[in-house]
Amino acid sequence: MTTPLRLGIAGLGTVGTGVVRIVRQKAELLAARAGRPVTISAVSARTRDKDRGVSLSEYAWEDDPVALATRDDVDIFIELMGGPDGPAKAATEAAIAAGKDVVTANKAMLAYHGHALALAAEAAGCVIRFEAAVAGGIPVVKTLTEGLAANEITRVMGVMNGTCNYILTRMQATGQGYNALFEEADRLGYLEADPNLDVGGIDAGHKLALLASVAFGTEVDFDGVTLEGIETVTLDDIRRAADLGYRIKLLGVAQMTGRGLEQRMSPCLVPADSPLGQLEGGTNMVVIEGDQVEQVILRGPGAGMGPTASAVMADVIEIARGTRLSTFGQPATSLVASTRAASATPARYYLRMALRDKPGALAKVATCLGEAGVSIDRMRQYRHDDTTAPVLIVTHKTTRDALDAALNGIGRLDELAGDTVALRIEAP
Amino acid sequence: MTTPLRLGIAGLGTVGTGVVRIVRQKAELLAARAGRPVTISAVSARTRDKDRGVSLSEYAWEDDPVALATRDDVDIFIELMGGPDGPAKAATEAAIAAGKDVVTANKAMLAYHGHALALAAEAAGCVIRFEAAVAGGIPVVKTLTEGLAANEITRVMGVMNGTCNYILTRMQATGQGYNALFEEADRLGYLEADPNLDVGGIDAGHKLALLASVAFGTEVDFDGVTLEGIETVTLDDIRRAADLGYRIKLLGVAQMTGRGLEQRMSPCLVPADSPLGQLEGGTNMVVIEGDQVEQVILRGPGAGMGPTASAVMADVIEIARGTRLSTFGQPATSLVASTRAASATPARYYLRMALRDKPGALAKVATCLGEAGVSIDRMRQYRHDDTTAPVLIVTHKTTRDALDAALNGIGRLDELAGDTVALRIEAP
Repeated sequence: MTTPLRLGIAGLGTVGTGVVRIVRQKAELLAARAGRPVTISAVSARTRDKDRGVSLSEYAWEDDPVALATRDDVDIFIELMGGPDGPAKAATEAAIAAGKDVVTANKAMLAYHGHALALAAEAAGCVIRFEAAVAGGIPVVKTLTEGLAANEITRVMGVMNGTCNYILTRMQATGQGYNALFEEADRLGYLEADPNLDVGGIDAGHKLALLASVAFGTEVDFDGVTLEGIETVTLDDIRRAADLGYRIKLLGVAQMTGRGLEQRMSPCLVPADSPLGQLEGGTNMVVIEGDQVEQVILRGPGAGMGPTASAVMADVIEIARGTRLSTFGQPATSLVASTRAASATPARYYLRMALRDKPGALAKVATCLGEAGVSIDRMRQYRHDDTTAPVLIVTHKTTRDALDAALNGIGRLDELAGDTVALRIEAP
Repeated sequence: MTTPLRLGIAGLGTVGTGVVRIVRQKAELLAARAGRPVTISAVSARTRDKDRGVSLSEYAWEDDPVALATRDDVDIFIELMGGPDGPAKAATEAAIAAGKDVVTANKAMLAYHGHALALAAEAAGCVIRFEAAVAGGIPVVKTLTEGLAANEITRVMGVMNGTCNYILTRMQATGQGYNALFEEADRLGYLEADPNLDVGGIDAGHKLALLASVAFGTEVDFDGVTLEGIETVTLDDIRRAADLGYRIKLLGVAQMTGRGLEQRMSPCLVPADSPLGQLEGGTNMVVIEGDQVEQVILRGPGAGMGPTASAVMADVIEIARGTRLSTFGQPATSLVASTRAASATPARYYLRMALRDKPGALAKVATCLGEAGVSIDRMRQYRHDDTTAPVLIVTHKTTRDALDAALNGIGRLDELAGDTVALRIEAP
């Protein structure tokens, strides 16, 4: 095959520019690996006159991404605009209707519309590939759908938002609080335009929903992800978790249980000496557990021009080689709608609360836990300042339902001052 | 596609039995993921009457693997016999001649004959897949040839022999010497029939040669791998390396340099707090560095029934899906013969020697190093027992040639007692 494979690229931000750079600078390598030349026919972005550090003059320009997606000289529509709806979705749908293959880094669009788009693409004989949408440069979609395809996956978990991991590990390293490090991350340009996408766990939740689909053969169900952000994690939590031998990570966990699919994105405690516990800064990590392979761990950059463009171009090379795979690892028509089981698996929990300095306060907390069937592994009361005393409890394994019942009871105690924080301890 | 894909399996040891188990127990999962049923037509092994814990009565039996490989009812020949030549090679060649695809876990055969077999297969329109040959359950071949295909790979390194890593980490943990732990590994059945394949670095060297080929687009060149085993590593080395903040690993490194391809398999020092340094027991790890993706690290089980069979079946599913890839990531005819550059890249080195207790001994060693242009970062002389004193030196970055010149000079000193050990310090 020496017919060139022709790309149309919509979105010329960091990733789009990175893709253009690779195509321009690595033509020979790409042709050798892909078995045919890879070229760019046309590009599209919101603003045309902007110095992106790379020449675009050889490529046709389209103001409208839908027009780009349907051009006769485009074989693959590369969607790098982002956003769950709007132009990204319209152009992707138009590309599929025109029989084009699609490569996208758009986790939000796929988290909401992935199943419908996959059905449309497969009906039209097109492929949609999205390696860049999950964990940047780490080829985790390929690993799950191909490398570990013979496994019944039992659990997928990972740290998939570098900004949150940066904030949490910097809190630990510098002793600065959440707000100061949120501002630092903002100054460094690490935060999305809407920072809640990062610190609220939404961005990572999109990725988790995509991984759950390919891991378990289920329809993408982002609304089934229980989301909890990192805003409630204090420096004290990080220090006390460290005292207990743990690190706090914004951890996504997807697990198929007897009751249905459990998808959680929340700050969790993980052992300090585990690979997840040792992960620092903006690096991502995905832990995959399967019935045959036991545990495979992937670690790498979750964002950035080079790594994300690397993932986009891997999908392009795959299509150039003639490989045509189902979007989510098996035909979209065979994916099943999963029952939601938000917190089916029991776990140990870390609880932090503040109690007013009254006799018997601690006993009342212990009673609430006991009555809900939650047993205590460790309990520490710290020296109190003013009139309240910080109390830290590590429970034995319990269900989230039982824990919530106990927290309800504790919440009604007069002795309680402020909110109680409950963080799951995830076994590695 | 609902035509079943029919396997012929030669070799029913641990891995072969694992493959039979998956096909029998996971028929539905395999059919869903592969898009068609996967069945076994025939099997072959040295001894027929042996309880393998799995029923073989439904499958045709062939005493001769060549006969198995060429059966009309076999689509894929699964070669799990092992050995660089003999029946494995004969049957693989016969399969290709008969137009069959081949899936193999045989690193030795591919290390010696991989290029010739790939040429033959591609000329015949067949594919050879070998994910299981390198790092067991870790999909590292797929990651290099597909997931990171848009990268110019700059370095691949890894711990790819679980037995050696088991011995080395147990030396550190238990304070027992090499010989005691070699015997322990033997008792536990961790050693190959010829233990030198493990502790001499040969088995891991085979794997490194295969990774180098897919990473750099070069013909497999196992004879170009500089091999050094772990037999010379003493408990003292492990302790002193730990004092300096390092761990000792049998590390394979393949790197494309301006002078050619460098392939080394040898005990190296790596930082104790790096992912490689933290790798314990029989687990494998491969670190891949590319110009776009920076660094991706894969970690998982390097051996065992489930993990290795998982890799074999991933290759089977790939073929069942209709994906047909070049054996080494690009057409075998386009692979280049690499120039060998055994130790082109400079590094820091750890040196351990014993000096007779004579005035000026240390100064003479320092002079030998200085004359060869090797500068010293740290030097420690330990309290001596009897008449010799152990001396430990960490050099600044130097070439291996300069170091060898210095070691030559040191070797001629009357003050030197016994052999000098030189271990490379590999930057993470």
